[in-house]
Amino acid sequence: MNQIVPVILCGGSGTRLWPRSRASKPKPFLPLVGEQTLFEATLSRCSAGEDFAPPVVVAGRQHLDLVEQQLGDRAAQVIVEPIARNTAAAIALAALRLPEEAVMLVCPSDHHIGDCAAFTVAALAAAALARDGWLVAFGILATAPETGFGYIKQGEPLGDAGFRVSRFVEKPDAATAKRFLDEGGYHWNGGIFAFAARTFLAELEKHRPKIAGAAREAVAGGHGEGRRFHPGSDTFARIESESVDYAVMENTDLAAMVHADMVWSDIGNWQALHAATAQDASGNAVRGRAELVDCRNVHVSSDGPRVSVIGVSDLIVVVDGDEVLVTSAAGAQQVGKLEGAANQ
Amino acid sequence: MNQIVPVILCGGSGTRLWPRSRASKPKPFLPLVGEQTLFEATLSRCSAGEDFAPPVVVAGRQHLDLVEQQLGDRAAQVIVEPIARNTAAAIALAALRLPEEAVMLVCPSDHHIGDCAAFTVAALAAAALARDGWLVAFGILATAPETGFGYIKQGEPLGDAGFRVSRFVEKPDAATAKRFLDEGGYHWNGGIFAFAARTFLAELEKHRPKIAGAAREAVAGGHGEGRRFHPGSDTFARIESESVDYAVMENTDLAAMVHADMVWSDIGNWQALHAATAQDASGNAVRGRAELVDCRNVHVSSDGPRVSVIGVSDLIVVVDGDEVLVTSAAGAQQVGKLEGAANQ
Repeated sequence: MNQIVPVILCGGSGTRLWPRSRASKPKPFLPLVGEQTLFEATLSRCSAGEDFAPPVVVAGRQHLDLVEQQLGDRAAQVIVEPIARNTAAAIALAALRLPEEAVMLVCPSDHHIGDCAAFTVAALAAAALARDGWLVAFGILATAPETGFGYIKQGEPLGDAGFRVSRFVEKPDAATAKRFLDEGGYHWNGGIFAFAARTFLAELEKHRPKIAGAAREAVAGGHGEGRRFHPGSDTFARIESESVDYAVMENTDLAAMVHADMVWSDIGNWQALHAATAQDASGNAVRGRAELVDCRNVHVSSDGPRVSVIGVSDLIVVVDGDEVLVTSAAGAQQVGKLEGAANQ
Repeated sequence: MNQIVPVILCGGSGTRLWPRSRASKPKPFLPLVGEQTLFEATLSRCSAGEDFAPPVVVAGRQHLDLVEQQLGDRAAQVIVEPIARNTAAAIALAALRLPEEAVMLVCPSDHHIGDCAAFTVAALAAAALARDGWLVAFGILATAPETGFGYIKQGEPLGDAGFRVSRFVEKPDAATAKRFLDEGGYHWNGGIFAFAARTFLAELEKHRPKIAGAAREAVAGGHGEGRRFHPGSDTFARIESESVDYAVMENTDLAAMVHADMVWSDIGNWQALHAATAQDASGNAVRGRAELVDCRNVHVSSDGPRVSVIGVSDLIVVVDGDEVLVTSAAGAQQVGKLEGAANQ
């Protein structure tokens, strides 16, 4: 079995794209860039065929309808999390449901990748390293002093297509991010990983034995239902909530990375979405009905009402049902703290 | 009969406060400043009592329901214009429906006046001059080089409370407006006038005999219906459409003015409305549900949806049914040119 198994993580309910993204219909399931939803685009990027096997989708119970609707009739396994327990547990469930020798490609379902061919090249390189026993992260070349991402410092080369990881760095402050950029050799941690199931589980057992044990127990006590798999919910609820970065990647001696120059965005807020969206000559982007007069770098997204905008720059306007959001580009990072986003 | 007869003009359908103001419910009939509509506030300012007789309201047929609803059970005469023919014709109709010796106070129905006591003082002064045979304009001391108003240059004093008009000036360009301000003695033409009916009709006859004749014919061929009066519509439709400023004030030798320091605004666009509205310490003003974060001089008006605004200055956001308007303060003057405003 040489094919890569995409493991698509649909957990998380970001508030930073509120009011379009809401608890009942979060970011992965919205057509934010282009006509496909981010989840559909993720499925398309690793469609079953020569390189990829059918995916394993890990999703919360409350989003199961959305997942199955957007999966359509694709072959897939859907692991239904009774409660969100972060990525270490989610990946453990998937690893335990696959053959030991399977190579998993862990993909968030809510990122945008502009260059799918480059993604495939990176995936194949990462899978080759994973088969050799490495835990492989995708590194996105840092092009700005971003403080919203974790960073990976590149180490020694591993053959032609990869590197050891020198170290992982949590989200840095602005001065540190600037230093990383000046120094070079730092990459954003895109949250995409390639692991052999066997290696991942062994390293999880080594560094987080409780998470590994509880995941094993939840899978043993679970049951299938068509293409769905339901882990034992009492056991799963007791699993510690920790990211795969903290639980495994920062601790393992087997961390590697590949370069992934694939026009990536985590669509982490409205300004990031604007940057990932096709723009006119004035830098404006519109979804829905709008008229823009004397505007530059304005992003309008409306689910119905017409939006008329005059004489502004670097502004985002979102209309969604009973909520209207107007934010400066710089203010986009504060959207999650709004009353509406907090109490949705 | 010493009381002043308010003549309240409800014609005109401004597009500059779109989308709140629409053809079906224009500016005078909206509660734009405070809880009363501008029309209701105009009625309140000249309530029947010691100084004022019941008003004559001149309104278009399409707004008759709004007028009568907001008039309530007040004593009034409502002259129903079958079609809009500007202010010279509207005032002529009112003058012809009043005794010759009546003193009319012509008031637009869509202005805001913050100091009602000062309005009354000016009205009484203007009425006294009108009884002496002058055609009296209200001059609002120019405090900024506004290019959106006509100007009145003050002439020789007429007793204690008024002046001859040296000349009327149409809306000036920016350089001219600046010069007026530097030079002093210029006032904005607030569109409020006091006339004796007899004097007005005589001067109209002298300078615009066709308008005077057609108005006379329309009144003669009209009919009453309760407190309504319907001028003969075929005749009225043939009246030339001209403002009282062009038709009479700029031509007469009897033009006078009084000072009216009464916190006046024509609410000519959204920025003017913002300026006339109570603001918080950051200069923000909100009507409807809103949350403002890091905002200065932001005006929000929503008829339903919550509006959340982050990190902007000098911005106006209006939500009205199926339309959302976002404009810079400076852009507010262009609102009338938007597709939505033009094709409402």
